[in-house]
Amino acid sequence: MNELAVGLAESCDPSQPCPSRGPKVVALGGGHGLYASLSALRTVTRDLTAVVTVADDGGSSGRLRRELGVLPPGDLRMALAALCGDDEWGKTWSEVVQHRFRSEGELHGHAIGNLLIVALWELLDDPVQGLDWVGRLLGAHGRVLPMASVPLDIEAEVELDGVISTVRGQVACALTPGRVRAISLVPPDPPACPQAVEAIEEADWVVFGPGSWFTSVLPHLKVPELARALHQTRARRLVILNLAPQPGETDGFSPEKHLEVLREHAPSLAVDAVLADQGVVDDLRALEKAAASLGGRLVLADVAASDGSPRHDGPRLAAVLDEIFHEKR
Amino acid sequence: MNELAVGLAESCDPSQPCPSRGPKVVALGGGHGLYASLSALRTVTRDLTAVVTVADDGGSSGRLRRELGVLPPGDLRMALAALCGDDEWGKTWSEVVQHRFRSEGELHGHAIGNLLIVALWELLDDPVQGLDWVGRLLGAHGRVLPMASVPLDIEAEVELDGVISTVRGQVACALTPGRVRAISLVPPDPPACPQAVEAIEEADWVVFGPGSWFTSVLPHLKVPELARALHQTRARRLVILNLAPQPGETDGFSPEKHLEVLREHAPSLAVDAVLADQGVVDDLRALEKAAASLGGRLVLADVAASDGSPRHDGPRLAAVLDEIFHEKR
Repeated sequence: MNELAVGLAESCDPSQPCPSRGPKVVALGGGHGLYASLSALRTVTRDLTAVVTVADDGGSSGRLRRELGVLPPGDLRMALAALCGDDEWGKTWSEVVQHRFRSEGELHGHAIGNLLIVALWELLDDPVQGLDWVGRLLGAHGRVLPMASVPLDIEAEVELDGVISTVRGQVACALTPGRVRAISLVPPDPPACPQAVEAIEEADWVVFGPGSWFTSVLPHLKVPELARALHQTRARRLVILNLAPQPGETDGFSPEKHLEVLREHAPSLAVDAVLADQGVVDDLRALEKAAASLGGRLVLADVAASDGSPRHDGPRLAAVLDEIFHEKR
Repeated sequence: MNELAVGLAESCDPSQPCPSRGPKVVALGGGHGLYASLSALRTVTRDLTAVVTVADDGGSSGRLRRELGVLPPGDLRMALAALCGDDEWGKTWSEVVQHRFRSEGELHGHAIGNLLIVALWELLDDPVQGLDWVGRLLGAHGRVLPMASVPLDIEAEVELDGVISTVRGQVACALTPGRVRAISLVPPDPPACPQAVEAIEEADWVVFGPGSWFTSVLPHLKVPELARALHQTRARRLVILNLAPQPGETDGFSPEKHLEVLREHAPSLAVDAVLADQGVVDDLRALEKAAASLGGRLVLADVAASDGSPRHDGPRLAAVLDEIFHEKR
């Protein structure tokens, strides 16, 4: 762990074991799903790294990658905001980076945090250094890394009424009606972010999801060096299942179907635990079997928001994650 | 002085007299001229406030005021950058806020610091609070305030070959050939920034210039509340003359002509000292007389950059300012 990351994680001499830091956790994903897992994980450990998809081609991020040839910054920004410091400083800068311009003009829709990240990238010519500077600005409780060093496109096989077509780009995947069957990356062999590989290799726990299954959770397994690290790490692996299928991506998918496509995309990946909200499970046997076929146990818990929306409740999710990490579940 | 400003100025209990802070100095201006005076003043005092023109309508600032209806942030950003902390943190964020996007697209030419300031304004709905947050980000050695709370336009009477015309806007003033005779503001009675009025009232020294004479230095005298404070303050007043006339604005102006137009725009303003580089003075008597007609003494010094460019040399200017403030000149 470098000096900066130590600074981010606060307290404890990094050369000494430090039980109060909690387990080394790497969270994989993107968008709102990763925001939810990080919001819970930040309260469970002080040694937290997010590894974020870089395949977004829509909105502010899509415009920035087209205009300036950079990684799409939006999911990285959102992950950083999720980790902001608890004090007025951290909260204010988090609100600032999340702020979006609204106008009739050229800035409309851009999040200022996206622009700030891109400016740092242009200035420092190093994606990780740029993100570390924003992390320091926010007093972030953890580190945020891109999964790859180059912008990616997702290519998806989509099935609708028995007809299979190929669509390219995250926006197209989300907008095309039907069910995604499989994804691949363009380019197919992108360079992984070396610090992300290292974080996975050194982790105690690696957490997949929740999030857009095909476009945020599975892409990591399609970056060869990252996939290798995810298979070889001595870390335990946890899958957090979504609370609802996602229209255009996983229409009608059962929880066990989510695990099935995970297995299809990484047949030899062993999973230690699968966390599902008890309210979304229709067929408990089938889900237990699907978890077991990945090598893992099923953990059922009440982790959904109490307002009935398909969002995880931060404190409840945190409590269950803490139990899982300490083998009390 | 509020809590934040104390934080910016570092050390010393603000409720106690503190000789090591240096005199309370307010610097008036905009653009590169103000950047030069602040770069020198920051080494002379720890109690420094910049009061910045908000009439720019060109470039990134002009686009932002047209698109989002905000104050033009560019001159404010440049002043903040001039005051950045000496450490890696301050220097890096200063470089970041000064960074400009270059592309074929919609962001081309925007300085990220302008966008950041505007985002803070939108979020906090208070121009001064927004600037104070950027000041804290930079670890700024002083405070930066807008001269007015609303965006302004400059209207100039321009003379060319004996013909007088009126042009509106800072860009038009700069581009229209000829000599500016007088300026006024649109609206003519803008609300001054209250904190700027207060800073002037409490100052030990108020510094006019260097900078674009009509569009950066004189506009402060056309904001009624600010003009009143500038006349009534018990602070001493220093004018720093430019090193060269500015094409389109002050073509062919002698140093004494600069003082003459200052007097025309504020006939009852008394000045304590006029600082001129000894290399630019052709007619010493005339300049001494012009300074005396404002009530001030002339200080001649070697303050120009040694490469012959019309820029002030920071350390030399600082040394002379320190002598003037301590009445050794």
